Amino acid sequence: MGYLAVSARPWAHRSVTSHAVDLDRLVTDAREGVPRAVARLISLVEDGGVGGDETPLRELAAALAPYTGRARVVGLTGSPGVGKSTTTSALVSALRADDRRVGVLAVDPSSPFSGGALLGDRVRMGEHATDPGVFIRSMATRGHLGGLAAATPQALRVLDAAGCDVILVETVGVGQSEVEVVALADTTVVLLAPGMGDGVQAAKAGILEVADVFVVNKADRDGADATVRELQHMVSLSRREVSGPSWRPPVVRTVAAAGQGIDDLVAALDDHRAWMADHDRLAEGPRRRARAEIEAIALADLRARIRELSGDAALGGLAERVVAGELDPYAAADEVVASVRG
Amino acid sequence: MGYLAVSARPWAHRSVTSHAVDLDRLVTDAREGVPRAVARLISLVEDGGVGGDETPLRELAAALAPYTGRARVVGLTGSPGVGKSTTTSALVSALRADDRRVGVLAVDPSSPFSGGALLGDRVRMGEHATDPGVFIRSMATRGHLGGLAAATPQALRVLDAAGCDVILVETVGVGQSEVEVVALADTTVVLLAPGMGDGVQAAKAGILEVADVFVVNKADRDGADATVRELQHMVSLSRREVSGPSWRPPVVRTVAAAGQGIDDLVAALDDHRAWMADHDRLAEGPRRRARAEIEAIALADLRARIRELSGDAALGGLAERVVAGELDPYAAADEVVASVRG
Repeated sequence: MGYLAVSARPWAHRSVTSHAVDLDRLVTDAREGVPRAVARLISLVEDGGVGGDETPLRELAAALAPYTGRARVVGLTGSPGVGKSTTTSALVSALRADDRRVGVLAVDPSSPFSGGALLGDRVRMGEHATDPGVFIRSMATRGHLGGLAAATPQALRVLDAAGCDVILVETVGVGQSEVEVVALADTTVVLLAPGMGDGVQAAKAGILEVADVFVVNKADRDGADATVRELQHMVSLSRREVSGPSWRPPVVRTVAAAGQGIDDLVAALDDHRAWMADHDRLAEGPRRRARAEIEAIALADLRARIRELSGDAALGGLAERVVAGELDPYAAADEVVASVRG
Repeated sequence: MGYLAVSARPWAHRSVTSHAVDLDRLVTDAREGVPRAVARLISLVEDGGVGGDETPLRELAAALAPYTGRARVVGLTGSPGVGKSTTTSALVSALRADDRRVGVLAVDPSSPFSGGALLGDRVRMGEHATDPGVFIRSMATRGHLGGLAAATPQALRVLDAAGCDVILVETVGVGQSEVEVVALADTTVVLLAPGMGDGVQAAKAGILEVADVFVVNKADRDGADATVRELQHMVSLSRREVSGPSWRPPVVRTVAAAGQGIDDLVAALDDHRAWMADHDRLAEGPRRRARAEIEAIALADLRARIRELSGDAALGGLAERVVAGELDPYAAADEVVASVRG
């Protein structure tokens, strides 16, 4: 398996669709771990996830379906500045030391306005650049409806088929879209750092409730003990909506930049995995991803129909009438739904 | 106009629907600025925005439609810790000194898991608690699809009809949902603070591109000059997708906790307003809100149909088949869409 850190998208969506015969070849190569093939397939997912001709995505999904289901997905999220990338990088090192093949998917919700990130991809995790057992990929998505929810499982499937044992999904930000993405993981890690007022803010965004493992990174800083205590208190208060016995999220202290505590984090991830296996719940993650993906694709389809059938001008006309007070938005939406249902 | 800072929701959705005759009274009272009526109506929006019987929301939308369109909406967003609440509070003071009636809507995307914020509402902006010209309201929404995009314009309409001159919409977090909410404003303010690595992170989340005004808060701290320069550089690089002449977002320095720079911020807001008026673009905000709301309601309707018609068990069954590799997610989504379109 070769090194992969492609962030540009040299292939336009159209060029792939016009050479449909390439898809089989790409899938075959990707299954053998050829990095360039994996990169092309993820680019395809990224570009085609919303709008445009989705035929190649359908073909890709069908082609990959039999070869997936082996990789374990670990999501990492937290506020800007807590050290997500550093922790992810340290985690990659630890997993590689254990000879596990690792995929990293850094999910950037792209701007709803420009259709792309304002800044280019960062050069990420340079120390793994020469390791043939690591795939690293930044991914943005176009549009916002169901974009991430649909595109992330698709990209995971590509990495899964390519032989990754563990796939780390790192999200930027702490918003709802990001929470939804990491909630698709088998194990979700929420990172905090001392003294950022993160506790309350994170709780607000709902990320505490999706955590299977908490990490207090930069644990050598003032306030680390307080943050750990605050988290442990929150864990003790929260009731998770699970049937049967519930997993109690541990709080792990790390100084990722110095590699400290990373073995504890790996152990916590493995503990969670073992607990899920013991409780016959390993299928939950894959099921959750499949459900989210199906629903996201269906909604994206319906949204496209809204814009096609109702027509952009028609929607604009309805909006004008709502602004003028001639029509209420529910009545306008009824017209839209009626046109979609044909 | 009285003081309003209700954060509990003493009225269940159902209790309002079962007394439909109350709605007219509530609307009449709200138009006269009776705080309790405004509070009830926003609770109705909050509770009924997703799922459940939407009849009262339809009635409310129809009842308010003729009385809205006067308020000016200012959105404020930024990473946790930049001082959004402090800045909002200082802005309220400045606007009140100018005798403008002010509404504050603090939007918390609720957890996708518990259906509610983990922590209760903070007691917010206590210094305005005795000012009869200020409405303050925290709002969460249930569910995540189109919830905020639909509920926020509805709540704004209530505050608009209640006589607010300016409505400040403050969001928690920097994710995509939050960006979408503040992008519904007439003027969008993006806050940053020195030394948090916010620049790049914010750009990643797309918030720089929606900004009409930048605020570097805590401008007395080290690194403020660098943050201002970085922003000014980004502004000079970015191209906004506008037809005709484009507004160049100013960068305002504030120390909100000390009230410094707030007059400059008010001036920047007014400058933006004046520029939009001069360029005949004042209608853009209301149109954008109406469009987003119509689309969000239509999609929420279609999503409800997905869950009803296709049946929760049916969707689960399709997910199982996708996990088993028997069906690809596109084919599964086709079945869902077909069932919705009946």
